[in-house]
Amino acid sequence: MGFEPSARAQELIERVMSFLETEIEPVEAELHAATKNAADPWQPQPAFKDLQAKAREQGLWNLFLPSAEPGNEQYGEGLSNLDYAPIAELTGRSFLAPYVFNCNAPDTGNMEVLLRYGTAEQKKRWLEPLLDGAIRSAFCMTEPDVASSDATNMAATAIPDGDEVVINGRKWWSTGIGHPDCELLIFMGLTDPDAHRYARHTMVLVPRDTPGVKVERLLPAMHRYDEPHGHGEVSFTDVRVPAENILVGPGRAFEIAQGRLGPGRVHHCMRLIGLAEHSLELAVRRGLSRTAFGKPLVNLGGNRERIADARIAINQARLLVLQTAHLLDTEGLAGALSEVSQIKVAVPRMAQDVIDMAIQLHGGGGLSDDFPLAAAWTGARALRLADGPDEVHRGVVARIELAKYKESE
Amino acid sequence: MGFEPSARAQELIERVMSFLETEIEPVEAELHAATKNAADPWQPQPAFKDLQAKAREQGLWNLFLPSAEPGNEQYGEGLSNLDYAPIAELTGRSFLAPYVFNCNAPDTGNMEVLLRYGTAEQKKRWLEPLLDGAIRSAFCMTEPDVASSDATNMAATAIPDGDEVVINGRKWWSTGIGHPDCELLIFMGLTDPDAHRYARHTMVLVPRDTPGVKVERLLPAMHRYDEPHGHGEVSFTDVRVPAENILVGPGRAFEIAQGRLGPGRVHHCMRLIGLAEHSLELAVRRGLSRTAFGKPLVNLGGNRERIADARIAINQARLLVLQTAHLLDTEGLAGALSEVSQIKVAVPRMAQDVIDMAIQLHGGGGLSDDFPLAAAWTGARALRLADGPDEVHRGVVARIELAKYKESE
Amino acid sequence: MGFEPSARAQELIERVMSFLETEIEPVEAELHAATKNAADPWQPQPAFKDLQAKAREQGLWNLFLPSAEPGNEQYGEGLSNLDYAPIAELTGRSFLAPYVFNCNAPDTGNMEVLLRYGTAEQKKRWLEPLLDGAIRSAFCMTEPDVASSDATNMAATAIPDGDEVVINGRKWWSTGIGHPDCELLIFMGLTDPDAHRYARHTMVLVPRDTPGVKVERLLPAMHRYDEPHGHGEVSFTDVRVPAENILVGPGRAFEIAQGRLGPGRVHHCMRLIGLAEHSLELAVRRGLSRTAFGKPLVNLGGNRERIADARIAINQARLLVLQTAHLLDTEGLAGALSEVSQIKVAVPRMAQDVIDMAIQLHGGGGLSDDFPLAAAWTGARALRLADGPDEVHRGVVARIELAKYKESE
Amino acid sequence: MGFEPSARAQELIERVMSFLETEIEPVEAELHAATKNAADPWQPQPAFKDLQAKAREQGLWNLFLPSAEPGNEQYGEGLSNLDYAPIAELTGRSFLAPYVFNCNAPDTGNMEVLLRYGTAEQKKRWLEPLLDGAIRSAFCMTEPDVASSDATNMAATAIPDGDEVVINGRKWWSTGIGHPDCELLIFMGLTDPDAHRYARHTMVLVPRDTPGVKVERLLPAMHRYDEPHGHGEVSFTDVRVPAENILVGPGRAFEIAQGRLGPGRVHHCMRLIGLAEHSLELAVRRGLSRTAFGKPLVNLGGNRERIADARIAINQARLLVLQTAHLLDTEGLAGALSEVSQIKVAVPRMAQDVIDMAIQLHGGGGLSDDFPLAAAWTGARALRLADGPDEVHRGVVARIELAKYKESE
Repeated sequence: MGFEPSARAQELIERVMSFLETEIEPVEAELHAATKNAADPWQPQPAFKDLQAKAREQGLWNLFLPSAEPGNEQYGEGLSNLDYAPIAELTGRSFLAPYVFNCNAPDTGNMEVLLRYGTAEQKKRWLEPLLDGAIRSAFCMTEPDVASSDATNMAATAIPDGDEVVINGRKWWSTGIGHPDCELLIFMGLTDPDAHRYARHTMVLVPRDTPGVKVERLLPAMHRYDEPHGHGEVSFTDVRVPAENILVGPGRAFEIAQGRLGPGRVHHCMRLIGLAEHSLELAVRRGLSRTAFGKPLVNLGGNRERIADARIAINQARLLVLQTAHLLDTEGLAGALSEVSQIKVAVPRMAQDVIDMAIQLHGGGGLSDDFPLAAAWTGARALRLADGPDEVHRGVVARIELAKYKESE
Repeated sequence: MGFEPSARAQELIERVMSFLETEIEPVEAELHAATKNAADPWQPQPAFKDLQAKAREQGLWNLFLPSAEPGNEQYGEGLSNLDYAPIAELTGRSFLAPYVFNCNAPDTGNMEVLLRYGTAEQKKRWLEPLLDGAIRSAFCMTEPDVASSDATNMAATAIPDGDEVVINGRKWWSTGIGHPDCELLIFMGLTDPDAHRYARHTMVLVPRDTPGVKVERLLPAMHRYDEPHGHGEVSFTDVRVPAENILVGPGRAFEIAQGRLGPGRVHHCMRLIGLAEHSLELAVRRGLSRTAFGKPLVNLGGNRERIADARIAINQARLLVLQTAHLLDTEGLAGALSEVSQIKVAVPRMAQDVIDMAIQLHGGGGLSDDFPLAAAWTGARALRLADGPDEVHRGVVARIELAKYKESE
Repeated sequence: MGFEPSARAQELIERVMSFLETEIEPVEAELHAATKNAADPWQPQPAFKDLQAKAREQGLWNLFLPSAEPGNEQYGEGLSNLDYAPIAELTGRSFLAPYVFNCNAPDTGNMEVLLRYGTAEQKKRWLEPLLDGAIRSAFCMTEPDVASSDATNMAATAIPDGDEVVINGRKWWSTGIGHPDCELLIFMGLTDPDAHRYARHTMVLVPRDTPGVKVERLLPAMHRYDEPHGHGEVSFTDVRVPAENILVGPGRAFEIAQGRLGPGRVHHCMRLIGLAEHSLELAVRRGLSRTAFGKPLVNLGGNRERIADARIAINQARLLVLQTAHLLDTEGLAGALSEVSQIKVAVPRMAQDVIDMAIQLHGGGGLSDDFPLAAAWTGARALRLADGPDEVHRGVVARIELAKYKESE
Repeated sequence: MGFEPSARAQELIERVMSFLETEIEPVEAELHAATKNAADPWQPQPAFKDLQAKAREQGLWNLFLPSAEPGNEQYGEGLSNLDYAPIAELTGRSFLAPYVFNCNAPDTGNMEVLLRYGTAEQKKRWLEPLLDGAIRSAFCMTEPDVASSDATNMAATAIPDGDEVVINGRKWWSTGIGHPDCELLIFMGLTDPDAHRYARHTMVLVPRDTPGVKVERLLPAMHRYDEPHGHGEVSFTDVRVPAENILVGPGRAFEIAQGRLGPGRVHHCMRLIGLAEHSLELAVRRGLSRTAFGKPLVNLGGNRERIADARIAINQARLLVLQTAHLLDTEGLAGALSEVSQIKVAVPRMAQDVIDMAIQLHGGGGLSDDFPLAAAWTGARALRLADGPDEVHRGVVARIELAKYKESE
């Protein structure tokens, strides 16, 4: 009853928490500073690889991996969405943790795609090194020249040509492409503009070093480059890859994209909840320890009310995400479509507001990088656009709501 | 996993839903009109008693009753809070239903108090006729002359005097006191101003017809008198009742009040969720069926976004209340103190906003009494004050939140 | 510089304020109670007529009257919109005052229509007794069966037939029609469904006692009937009036309605600002005088912040209305279209929020009719629908905003 | 009537607008890129100095300068606050413009302090080169180790010692200190902890190159360093300057700070209004030119409503700032204390919300630095803390509001 994790998940939660406290938190600020001050911030810090090795050794690795489907048993017995959710929440408390545990976007989503839609050969070539953390990947969908909130707008092309497919166009916000280990791009392009709206586009596996692929620049998201991962603007000029690099088949991109959506959004949202929880904790600690006008900050004006509102908002948001994870586990994406969009609307907005409050309690410090709050806030803001803007998700929720009554009118 | 009701509850939910659809909804408007147009609106409509009889016959009666504690087995095997919650939600869809099922405030809370704290004699005298629906009761706590949000402010007195207790003072918002069947008042008064803050007040059972009890007037709540139940302002002038009418003992009022709180707030909140759901349904139906500027209203401006936001808000609120009910069941009030206050803040505000949206989609009709929305809206507003104003509950939530960190500072 | 009133207006403001304090405030609660407790609340209280007489005697009468246009000099030298605005604000502090000063909706708008569009004969017959306060009037536009937010939806008909015009259909929210002195209805009906969207409807003067006019019922607005004025649902069955009762000409209704809009909305908004100011004053006084948890309420939690936010919101709203009045004076309605809609969106919402806060500080008292807050709150809510719902006005503002850039795209 | 600028101001407004369009806008992106890509971004771009020279030549220089007080005539005839306000709004449309016109914080505030409180010698030494744009300055008040929202908390010391004053402590958010031309620091320190709360602190002029002054680091504000100006953390270790560098006298810091407040906040707020206007313009243009789901973005969901709300919010905010400027001009700071705090609460929040909406309409582009929106958004956020957090200003507004009624209770 309720959303208590399974015994196996509970044990993992405790070990992840302990790893966070003993291995990651003590070095995180140092590692960020090392990256920031490095001659080349795009080179991953060696200490980071050590953390990964330690996490892997302890079995805290690829925990995002979904429950095995027939034919995928060799990739391990995954957790249910509901069991993974509190682990994702914990990793969200730290900007480093998702990477340390090999549970970061977009690699998780890309691995899921390969797991579910890849051929045995594709799994061997790309999935296995990704699961090993040996390589990294990017997802190339959003485009600078069209309103990408409507994914059918995508105009970059993937045109089959004999036993090859030819790719042209420009993508941006290809996250992770700045990393030196990024070797695989999953590209979505227009193949047949005359097909049904959702059958026009194709997904193709593109090795990063294919001729014609060029990272034009790395983009700051709210002034941060997120080194060493980065967000790239990428041009594709007559890029040719073998036709077998097409995932599933031409025109199947939307079908594949669908599969990525549910769990990916649950992960994003649970991490944001972890971030909001951490921010609330920082706010309370700061508010208790600093004094103005003769009182601890928490006792001034509406600060206690705001702390209460943050607690209420976090709790409601978490329950909605857990419920969504539960629905995904029990009814699949089709039974959770509205909920997946609901959390995507509710959680980033909630997180942004909670973090905003925490910043306010930190005064000038909240704007600096002495605290993780500024990065948390701009990160939460970015997630109101990434993976579909709020407005599109509200549209999905409304459509499903109206459908309940339309027939009966 | 999740908050699925038990098999027993599921069966009751279906029967309550069916009763609502077949027995209550078809006659509700008519019954309200009959009351409104009656020569004396304070006389309950005979048709209402018939509905009660039918509900009782079908076993849809006193479903709020908590799980039996030792010594109370004869009053039946109650439902858990989590199992009763969806039933309460259903009854909230109608203003009549809680009364039809003998599950309305404040009688439910008063019955719980008697069940838990009453002597065998008190149960026989008051609890049994209340459970039978033969009499009604009121709760006399709030006072016009002090800020009653701080319950320790209560100034009306209950002074033991030999084998009697003497009551003086003035109360208001004594809900239900306008009903001709109201025979019992539970009165809270100051006994010892020098005792500890939470040991000064006493609860006393006062028969409605005791000399010195006078209903000075019936109060409109946002312009509605809620006939035939009503909200009274009541003066107590040298009212004398036997000392054995004191519940538990002098100075024990806060201890008793505590026991009322948790379930009562879950009930209020679940009913509001039912009301919000019903309002959203009305909003969508209206928005689909009316046309302006050449389109159904739902397709104009931000209407779909507002419908989506309402869906998200209701879902989050419901999960928080279910989680609170679950905590009450598994950890008792002590383990759910923050959550009980969280829902009391979150749910009425959510309901008020959802209903406001529904009114807006109904245009002028939404302001009239052709739809239940105006009454729903002002009712939700009133619940931001009744049972403790939002601000006090936020204070509770904040205090518990701060306590997590205070020791570690 | 700024929005200081003229010397003449300043003098009137002071006299209106003094009249409010000495004549109206002392008797207002009593007068409301007398109406409420009367055998027939639809009969105006005699004391009310005395107040009107006194106001008129002091020259505080018809102050809303716009500046004279050529041909209307005999109706007096009106104030500019900017000069009348602070007077309207003052009258908004009391529910009675607008009537006492003969400055209440819808009579003001109806008088303006007659002044601007009436023939000499129509002025003599209807305008003069309205200016005298001898009769009252209603405006019959909104319909129960169509979404009236789109005024072109109006389906009741006004069909010329020889030297008569025949009226059929049903209207509701015809404010003022419950008053025994209401003798004139201004009716808007469909004449030519094939004409241009804004040339289909006609306005007709209909004497209240014309055969076929029936007040089907009086509607409560958020549970209040607003006796003795009321809001009626009115049926028109083969109602025949002389063709010269058509205002201006067939198909000219929208043109006439336009002229009503600007000043009427400024008046509504300024009255709401007065109501919000009065509510804030009540909130502060209550918050200073009541104590909970050992402190005056104003010093608890976020109460001071809410008071500050109310002050800021009122000040911003007032300035926007004054600016709109100033634009109406200097550039006419065409130069103030966006602003007139802006205030209609901003002010009722602001007032609703400020009053909500004041209610919260009054606890249960705020829900009762011991304070004007409950009526203020539901009244402000109603104004988010009356005179066009917020959504329609936002649409106007957006259209004008977009037009600034459309040509340049 | 209204807030029309004087003829002189109107002429300046037009020239500033034209300068913005012809001189600044065409090169701004380029200049920002040049700074960003420079080997040393802390070296001002030569092109910038050219712009300044051109602005100065055209008389668009030091326009912020307040109206001359006796003894200051040689520094020119300044504009009233109301006349300068729309010019400040224009400069806010560009991040560069305030610097180009020598009208940027904190130099403006520092120049005002010198103008009003400096000796003739101090004016000659510091004010004149500041007015010339030959040097720059910083203001050292906020401290990392105390809650600086309560300015009486400031713990860094300024201790008179014979004919010197000795300075010790640590400041941060000293804006402008990263610039190579920054030669003057105005330092606020504790002199006499036993004096009256507002008479403990002293302001001292400290040449940037005095031994013991060390910029420990430059702080990012929401990830931006704002090169070449920057925000510094500065340590002062046994810094000794002549006693005549004390402004006015020991213990007079609060008195001096007061004088800075009013106009400085009007400037900040008007610039934010310019930024919000510019963001709204970008939002509308983007919304008209991009298409999703077959429609221009502006016609999707609630976008038009949000554009309307932005227009309404900007207009209300602007009027409140103009009213505040007018009060400062006519009644001085004492007559505008509440309003100065009101705008400081209302305007940054409004700007943050409007810009947030504009970002949302820009999709991923809104997060990048291809548009000024990300910088605008984080800048508006920072201003909810800089110059006093919202909560402190709400406290001022509430205090003044309560004082209206306190005596009468």
